[in-house]
This record gives sequence, C-alpha cells and structure tokens, in this order.
Amino acid sequence: MIPVGVLGATGAVGQRFVQLLAGHPFFDLQVLTASQRSAGKKYRDAVNWRVDVPFPEATADIVVSDTKTESLKGVDLVFSALPADLAGTIETACAQAGIGVCSNASVHRMEPDVPLMVTEVNPDHIGMIDLQRDRGMDGFIVTNPNCSTIMLTMSLAPIRGFSFHDIRVATMQAISGAGFEGIPAMSIYDNVVPYIGSEEEKMEKETVKIMGTFNGSEVIPAPFTISASCHRVPVIDGHTMAVWIDIPDPVPAVAAAYRNYQAPISNLPSLPLKSVDFMEQQDRPQPRLDRLKGNGMTVSVGRLREGIRYIAMGHNTIRGAAGASVLNAELIHAKKYI
Amino acid sequence: MIPVGVLGATGAVGQRFVQLLAGHPFFDLQVLTASQRSAGKKYRDAVNWRVDVPFPEATADIVVSDTKTESLKGVDLVFSALPADLAGTIETACAQAGIGVCSNASVHRMEPDVPLMVTEVNPDHIGMIDLQRDRGMDGFIVTNPNCSTIMLTMSLAPIRGFSFHDIRVATMQAISGAGFEGIPAMSIYDNVVPYIGSEEEKMEKETVKIMGTFNGSEVIPAPFTISASCHRVPVIDGHTMAVWIDIPDPVPAVAAAYRNYQAPISNLPSLPLKSVDFMEQQDRPQPRLDRLKGNGMTVSVGRLREGIRYIAMGHNTIRGAAGASVLNAELIHAKKYI
Amino acid sequence: MIPVGVLGATGAVGQRFVQLLAGHPFFDLQVLTASQRSAGKKYRDAVNWRVDVPFPEATADIVVSDTKTESLKGVDLVFSALPADLAGTIETACAQAGIGVCSNASVHRMEPDVPLMVTEVNPDHIGMIDLQRDRGMDGFIVTNPNCSTIMLTMSLAPIRGFSFHDIRVATMQAISGAGFEGIPAMSIYDNVVPYIGSEEEKMEKETVKIMGTFNGSEVIPAPFTISASCHRVPVIDGHTMAVWIDIPDPVPAVAAAYRNYQAPISNLPSLPLKSVDFMEQQDRPQPRLDRLKGNGMTVSVGRLREGIRYIAMGHNTIRGAAGASVLNAELIHAKKYI
Amino acid sequence: MIPVGVLGATGAVGQRFVQLLAGHPFFDLQVLTASQRSAGKKYRDAVNWRVDVPFPEATADIVVSDTKTESLKGVDLVFSALPADLAGTIETACAQAGIGVCSNASVHRMEPDVPLMVTEVNPDHIGMIDLQRDRGMDGFIVTNPNCSTIMLTMSLAPIRGFSFHDIRVATMQAISGAGFEGIPAMSIYDNVVPYIGSEEEKMEKETVKIMGTFNGSEVIPAPFTISASCHRVPVIDGHTMAVWIDIPDPVPAVAAAYRNYQAPISNLPSLPLKSVDFMEQQDRPQPRLDRLKGNGMTVSVGRLREGIRYIAMGHNTIRGAAGASVLNAELIHAKKYI
Repeated sequence: MIPVGVLGATGAVGQRFVQLLAGHPFFDLQVLTASQRSAGKKYRDAVNWRVDVPFPEATADIVVSDTKTESLKGVDLVFSALPADLAGTIETACAQAGIGVCSNASVHRMEPDVPLMVTEVNPDHIGMIDLQRDRGMDGFIVTNPNCSTIMLTMSLAPIRGFSFHDIRVATMQAISGAGFEGIPAMSIYDNVVPYIGSEEEKMEKETVKIMGTFNGSEVIPAPFTISASCHRVPVIDGHTMAVWIDIPDPVPAVAAAYRNYQAPISNLPSLPLKSVDFMEQQDRPQPRLDRLKGNGMTVSVGRLREGIRYIAMGHNTIRGAAGASVLNAELIHAKKYI
Repeated sequence: MIPVGVLGATGAVGQRFVQLLAGHPFFDLQVLTASQRSAGKKYRDAVNWRVDVPFPEATADIVVSDTKTESLKGVDLVFSALPADLAGTIETACAQAGIGVCSNASVHRMEPDVPLMVTEVNPDHIGMIDLQRDRGMDGFIVTNPNCSTIMLTMSLAPIRGFSFHDIRVATMQAISGAGFEGIPAMSIYDNVVPYIGSEEEKMEKETVKIMGTFNGSEVIPAPFTISASCHRVPVIDGHTMAVWIDIPDPVPAVAAAYRNYQAPISNLPSLPLKSVDFMEQQDRPQPRLDRLKGNGMTVSVGRLREGIRYIAMGHNTIRGAAGASVLNAELIHAKKYI
Repeated sequence: MIPVGVLGATGAVGQRFVQLLAGHPFFDLQVLTASQRSAGKKYRDAVNWRVDVPFPEATADIVVSDTKTESLKGVDLVFSALPADLAGTIETACAQAGIGVCSNASVHRMEPDVPLMVTEVNPDHIGMIDLQRDRGMDGFIVTNPNCSTIMLTMSLAPIRGFSFHDIRVATMQAISGAGFEGIPAMSIYDNVVPYIGSEEEKMEKETVKIMGTFNGSEVIPAPFTISASCHRVPVIDGHTMAVWIDIPDPVPAVAAAYRNYQAPISNLPSLPLKSVDFMEQQDRPQPRLDRLKGNGMTVSVGRLREGIRYIAMGHNTIRGAAGASVLNAELIHAKKYI
Repeated sequence: MIPVGVLGATGAVGQRFVQLLAGHPFFDLQVLTASQRSAGKKYRDAVNWRVDVPFPEATADIVVSDTKTESLKGVDLVFSALPADLAGTIETACAQAGIGVCSNASVHRMEPDVPLMVTEVNPDHIGMIDLQRDRGMDGFIVTNPNCSTIMLTMSLAPIRGFSFHDIRVATMQAISGAGFEGIPAMSIYDNVVPYIGSEEEKMEKETVKIMGTFNGSEVIPAPFTISASCHRVPVIDGHTMAVWIDIPDPVPAVAAAYRNYQAPISNLPSLPLKSVDFMEQQDRPQPRLDRLKGNGMTVSVGRLREGIRYIAMGHNTIRGAAGASVLNAELIHAKKYI
C-alpha cells in the first residue's frame, strides 16, 4: 500500500478525492490538508461534507494538517485539489521533496515537461515524468485536464484514426464544476449562463496537447483546431457537449469505431468496464441518467449523426476531476513510477 | 378594429395569443375555439390559465366555440395555435372561406406559396399571399417558423450582408416549448435532454426559406447551410443558442453591424424598440434576465467573438410563437391585406 | 432462495423493486410482469430504465409476462407496484392462489385483516396474516403505507413512549412520488404545488393503524390525531416534513430518546445500520445530501426544538415504497411465513 | 412630488425599490446610495441589474452617492434596503436629520416607538410616529416586517375577528429572500434546506406586535402564539406557507370572512385591487402562477379546510419587502406625515 495524501481535502474536488480513495486497494489515505483554519481538527469536524454519497467514516478521525510540504512526511504521493493560486508553489515544492503529485489544478498543465494526461487517451505521455529530472525533481507532477476537456478527448479517442482538422464544441456544464459555493442559485436557476471564465481557452489548448505526439523529448500538438462555446446549465453533476467534427467518412463507419473501441490500458481499479459507452437511443446520453455509469468514470457518447455530430457526457467531478487523477495515479503505480 | 379569433385558445401557445391580443389596438378578440370538450363554456371556465401573468379578465366571458370554420362567422383573421395534425385541414378551410390565417403550426410552412415570415427578416415575403389566389383562396395563410428558427434568423438579420455559407448552431431550449404537459419533470429536472423531435430538421430547412429571395413567383433558398444540434435544458422560458458562422471579417466589423442594425419595418404595435439587442457584457444574454426585454419580442445577441461565434436568446412562446404571429398580422394589416 | 416476482415492473416503483431485488440474498427474481404491450419482450427492451443508478444487467433477459396469476407459476412471493385500480383484484387472486403479496398499492391497506406494516414500527402486525386464513387465502397480502406515512411513523417510533395526542405535519414531497410521467415540468419547476390528491387523508388514517395495537384479532387505532398539509416541491427524491407533536417533556429528553433508539428487529439484509439517524446540525436533514444514507433506507430526523418541533426526511421511492416492501418481505421470511 | 432616495440601491431589495419607484406618482426618485465602491458612478454602471424585468432607463443617469446622511440633501423620505448592521446608525441619523425612513431592515422593528406596519393590517400604528418626537427625531422611522411575517399577517387580517390563540406555520420560502448571492446553487437545487437563520423567531415576535393594539402610547401584543417552522425550497420568488389556526368556527364561516374582506384603506397607488385573493381551486395558490397578481402586491390564500388549515402565498421581494415599504410610505403621505 502506498501512503498518500490529499491537498485541499475540504473543497468540492477534495471531498471527491477522499470519497474515491477511502478503501482504495493501492493507496492508503494518511494525510489530509486544508487551510490553517481547519488544521488540527479531525476531518469529520473540519469538513462540511456535501457530496451526495454518505461520508466515508474511515476518514473521520484523520487529523487535518496545514497545506505545506512539512505535513507530508511519509507520504509518497499526493492528490492536489488546490486552487490555482496555491497549487503552483506547493505542488512544485512537493515534487522537489521527492513526492509524486497528481494534480487537478490548472497551473502546471501546459508546462512542456508536465504530462497532461487522460489515462485512456495518452498513457504514453507518462514518459514526460523522466524529463522532470532535469528540473531537479525527485518526485513528479502529473496533471489531468479541465473537466470539459476530459469528456471531449475521451469522446475523440475512439475516432482518432479518422481524418479531421476542425472541431466545434458547445458545452452544457454542471454547476458542481464551480465548487460548492461557486454559483449563486439566483444566477443559474431557471437560467443558462453562456460564459465560463477561461473554459473555452482551456479546451482549445489542452486538447491538442493531450492528443499530441510525445516523441520522447516534447509533445507535438495534434494537427487540428477546436472552437469551443461554453455554457452553464442548471444541472448538479454531468457535463454534456454537442460536438461537430469534420470526418468525411459516413456515419456507420464512425459508429463502428465507437462500438469496437477498447481502452489501451487495463487492470486498473478505477478503470470502468467501458471507458466510452456508445448509446444507440435517440435521446441519450443524459446527465442525470448516465453520469453514474462505471462508478462515474464512463463517458457516454450518443446521437451520432451526419455532420459528423454527436453528444458526449460524463460526470464532471468524478471522471472530469478527482477520478481522472486517481486513474492517472493507478497507471503511474502500474508503470512503477511510485 | 378587425374582428379576430384564436384557434386552439386553451393550450400553451393559445393562452399566449389571448394574453397578447387582449387590449390590442388593431384586433378585436371575438372568437376563441378549442376542442368539443370546452365548447360552450366561458373562456374563464374552459381554460386552466397557466401563463405567469394574470388572466386577462376582458376575455373571461367569451364563450368558447368548437374549432371549425362555422364558429368563425364575422371574423376576418384567425391566429392558429392548433397542433400540426388539426392545423392542415382547418387552416386551409379558413383561407378558402375568406379568412386570413396567421399560423404558428408547422404544417403549411414549407408550401411554395405560403410565406414563412419573421416580420423583421423577410417582410417582402408577404407578397406570396397573392400566389395563394391561384389555389382559389379568398383568405390566406401566413406562417411563422419554429421558435428556434426565429431566434436564429433574427440574429442573422443584422449580419446578412457579410459573406458566409456555413452555420452551426447548438440550442439550449426551454421546457415551455413543448407545451404545458409536454415534458415530465422527472425527464428534465437536474438534466439535459439532447434531442427534440424534428427540431434540427426544421431549423435547417426553414432558415434557408426565410432568408431566401422571393422573386415574385417563388422563393430561392438562401445559399448557405445550417447544421443544428438541439437540446432541452431546465429553463421555463427562453431559448438560448450558440452559433458559429464562417464570416471572414474581423469581430469589430461584425459588432458594428449589430450595433447599427435597424429593423426594416416600423410603427407596428408589437414591434419592440430594439428587435435585436446587442449586449456587450461577457456573460449575457441569459434567459431569465433578458427574455422579457421588449415585452418578450426582443432577441438578444452577445458574446460575439472570433470564430465568428455568438450567443442568441429570445422568449420562445412570445417572440418565438404567439408574438411572432401577432407581429406578422400587424404587418399584414399595415399592408392592407386585411 | 425464494422465487419471487414483481407486478408492474416497468413503472417507477417497479424499477426500484427490480433494482433492490437484483442480487438479493434471500429472493431470486424470476418473474417480471407488465401490461400486455410489454409482455413477451425481454425486460431490457420492455423497460425505459430511468432510475439514476445503472440498469441491473442480470435482469436484462427476463421475459416480461402479462400481469395475471397465470404468469406466476413457481413463484412464492410477489412485490406489487401495481396502480390502485389493478391491484385490488390481482393481489387478492394471488393470495387466493397461495402466493404471498408484499404490496405498495393503497387498495388493501385499510382492510381489517391486512397488515399495514413499517418493519421497524409495527413488526408484530405481521400476525394479522393468520387472520387472512378466514378469507380462504393460502397466500397473504401485506401492505406498506404511503411514502409520507412511512417517514412520519419512522420518526415517531423512537418517541412513542412519550405522552402526546396531537400531531401536525407539513410535507415537502419529491416529484418522483408521482411516477415518471406524473408531474409536468411546467407544473413544478420554480414552483410549489400545495396539494397532493388523497395524501393528507392517507397520512391521517394510515398512521393510527400502523401505530395502533394489534390484540390478536384486530388493530386498535392509536389514540392520537394527525392533521396533515401536503405539498409538492421541486426535488427529485426525498420527502421532507415539518412535524409538531404535543409532547410535554423538554427537548433534551426527547433528543435522548432519538439518540438511544434501536430498531426492534435485526439481521435483515435491507435493514440499515441506523433506521433513524438523529442529526445535530442545525440545517439538516436535507433531501439531496441525506436521502441515500443507509442505501436509502434510513430516515433522518433533525432540528428538534421546543414545540416539540422537528424535521424528518427519507427517500420516498426506496424507504418510502419499494425498499419498505422488501424489508417487510425479509421479516416475513425470517418469521417463516414464506 | 416628494423627493425621495433609496439607501442600498444596488442589492436585491434595493433594485426592487428602484423598479417600484421609477415613475411613481407621489415620489420623485432623486438619490440612490450604495457602498463607497459604487459612489460616483452612474446607477447604470454601478448596478448589476438582476431583477427579471427590464432596467428602468429613467434611473440610469442618477449618480450613486455614498450611504450617509450628507448624501441626502433635499430628500424628504428614504427607503432603506440596508443590511441590518448598517441600518441601525444610518436610519437613526436620517430620522434625526428630519428625514422620514421607510425601512425594510430588521434592526428597529421591535423598538417600542417604531411602527412595524403592514399597511392593510395595522394602519393605525402609524400614530407611533408621534412617539418618536420624544427621542428628538424630526423625521421618523417606519418599518415593515420580515417577508414571511407579511404574508402571514395579511392572511390573518380577514379572519382576525374569530377567536383563536394558537397558530402553527410551516413556510416554503424562495431563494430570492436571501439576496442575489445568498444561497449557492449547490445548496438548494434538487433540495430543501429546513433552516433559515432567525426567521422563526422573527415570525413569532413580529406577528404579535403587528396584530397588537396600539393604545396611543404603546402596543399591547396580540393574545396568541405562533410556532413557526421555516424552510427554503427551490423557487425564485414567492413564499408559500401552510397555516393551522385554532378557530372553532366551521370552514364556511371562515371562507365567508375571506370572501367578504375589504382592506381598511383605499386610494393608494400601490394598493392592489385585492389585498387578499381567496382562491377556490384545490391546488392553488402556487408561487410561479400567482406571485405577480396585483403587480406582486396581492397575497393569495387557498385550500381552506377543516383544522382550520390554509395556504398563503405572496411575492417575497415585492409584497414582502420593497413593495410593503412603498405602500407604507403612500399611507404616511396620505396621512400627511410627509
């Protein structure tokens, strides 16, 4: 068992990390950090548990520590749910101190020696960890992308063999993506907010890094462009997106690629039976009905029709955040980086 | 004052017609029709008023009649909120009986001699009424398009002078568009339904007719294509849509066209001060905050950015249905067709 | 393993029965019935699965049969999710044919020889099964009450030792209680509907039967009255209720009763660790955060304050319907009635 | 025309004041105050207008001033939408400076010489203004109660002639009552929060002051008690409440009192045609359908049934806040206090 910690364990993504790591077969959750205000309290008392599955009692008595490297003695790996402004220095300090970091924060994602990894999409980018030795890091930083980017790249993975160069994507994103306090009810109830700060830019830049080619020393970005339009809708969990992709092949050929898809990895505890579930019903996927498929780790694709147009949907705080990091960590463990 | 009636006055669109016509300066609401079950009752007793503005008391004592031409004695114009399966025969019978029909139903929209009219977008298509004489109609049928098509074409009107040939549109449509009983709460609450029957096809076909050229004998469809992806979201009223249009000009030029836009018609009672309101705030338009602008008749456009991408939004049961028909009727009246 | 069936397996409560019975340690799900339209299809094809947990694949290939006793060959026990108008004759026919019936339908609840049972509240009422022999039934009918009544009686069980005679209860009920199609979105979104047909009467009558004394030949109703006011609110699952009860004792004494409560039964598979969870936080219970506690079988009680006033909340389609029936069946099995 | 101002004009209640006062026949809106951050900006630029009716353009160019008495030169009356912590000193300073204050803030409500007034319920309490002379105030402070208390007392006004001493009320309150930013969407969507800080205490104390007897020198509290249970539900505007009142008379007698009710005042611009609308339909009132009745100033009462039980509902930010203050001011003006 690898001793692990969660940085920022009381927030929305932090709580999901704790939920997913409680009882994990590889990782032994030993350290939970939060702000100074919470440090010294038992996790049960420090957290206002607001995930809609019951609180994992096994974590109740862990004493929360301050978010700094000194708190991480004996830990080999941390999962970071830190806000972007804190993540930069602390994650780097952890990696320099010999700790592996699997981060959901955005700050290191676009650095040239940091893997931006969706486990099933670009597992070979894990090799970028070796480049980090040149920075003098004994540990490492591996990031997962923005939640919407994860759903998009997962939906592209089965069809990456086709020729295309132009992707348009319109998202309908859940409110949990902004954290527990992020969006006032008066802003989103009976409403659509057609703007999410920096989200379109992230989707456009992150996708071509993830789908790019790692040649051993750098990532050559994928040769296509994405144009995104991002919107918030009144849904608790589950990001839905409408995608156009200029594949010239007919719909049945593309459908066959989805039906035949097998993830290029296997035997990881959080890997769902189907990483991408191709749905034939004309009105699916839907967030409330499909977000918990594969314990929240499956991305559902449907409504494939000429254009090529399709709908992709996945659980944004599991598949799109904490679960993505945990699955990355499982691969890192399988590849003996920890 | 022109004596008018509403066909199908108890449903969702029918109630909106009644709301908009009560106290109208040109039209005197005399006849309300519904199914046989309601015929003979006072409107107050026949209708389950579910519009969120108070019931117009002036209509309370109108005795509802059966939906057939015999009920329309003395009426010069009817507004049709009939379902598609009834609208075909009854609207034609009305027109043959010398009555003008302004219809929100889809059945006659694509007929070659029937105007599919968005008042500010293609007012000259009103001339197609003359073609209907060849069918032996003393009255006429004028249709308005599908609600989503209205928002799209209104948003295109200010920029139709630019060169483009490819439009992609992803809609986020309100539940009122399916009528009062159309969508079970269990289907849409905390959910997105990425499918609306026939909606994408309607947007793709209707738009090129509306934006086409009427040469006096037929409409030459507009020379561009639309690819639509239509989705239902948990919003009461107001259809929002993300649009991509391949205008090669820079954003400021397109913005200027929006800012300088003037509707090509004027002096009609239901015409709002601004038919298209161009919003500069980065997170607008939003359905709950902007749908009642111009008494629900203004289409709001915002988030214009390179791509060219933008957001359009309007009230689907006012601007996108009953109000569209009433505004068409006001133009028909101004042009002396009634 | 007892061979069992579900009557009305494609509706909202029927789907919950199937979810809860798939993989059950005592009961082997062999027969699923539905209307003639579905008969002959595999369950996978007959059902539009709309529970928000994934479809239980083990049930996919069960061929759905018509809802009649002939379909139940070899089955010892059925769970009934039939609508009230069908349940009357079919459930009686089953019992006469020697089959045990655990029913969620309302039709037999108030019959003098039929147990109306909430497993933890009145397990001794199971003895009423013996009275049914006088009707010539080789099988039996055991009912569970209305969903709101279950939450109320569960919340009363820990404090039934105090003296009281007057209960007022105002409910805030979830939309799933009306089935998948029961409530149009336009009726309940951004709204409260302060009326649920027959619900107040059910709460008022059923509660005194359940809390009454079974003396071996009849149930003496409990000596208190309930006055209910029932309301629908925009919540998917979970009925919340505000209760006043005229217990003269001080709050700490009542709180102690809740804290010390132990259900009078044990060792049943669906029995949660805590049947009643007494919450100390001032803003709990809340349906979205607490409804899945104990796999949906725990009733949460909180905000106990002078008055005596408190809040009770539980999952209406699990604890309040299908799960209640399954737990009753587990007790029936433990008591050797099957 | 009386020159007036609004204190705290950019918040939720402040925006409602501005909406209601723009174009008012008695009051000329001249001064809008806000925090220092907004002072000096035009109102159009200072406010993030989030009321769902269009922005009143007539107020756009008013330059916002800092919230202090110096900003109020030339103003005879101010409407206060200040938070409780600011309202105390500033409102008193205004009154001492000779300005009349109609306040929605809670801080002065229970002071023995301050009217806590619901215009139709206790208009005679206006006489308490004279008592304020003893404090050396040339101006005055008149308060309106908490939103829920307004709905409750309005619903009691028509039946105050009956004998009763015990009231229970369970509220289902709208999210707008907590201001634009008050409630995170993650807290209330698909949820009920059974706690609103201090709300139950306010209802219990304020109601007996309002319904009490003013004998010229003090208010004798009304001789009944209220026990409240307050809950937040996912509704934008409109507080609904279930009320029990121990009137021994039969339902028809109570219904007659509602039907015959006439408000004891008349001829005020904001006074609705019906202050209390008694609804006979079994499923009304409902917030989304009934909250805009009487321009949001009517309280709807329905479901009167034995118990005595009934439902009351009104618009919380109009009738329950800004509109209540404006109507009070209209009475104050009619009674020549300004």
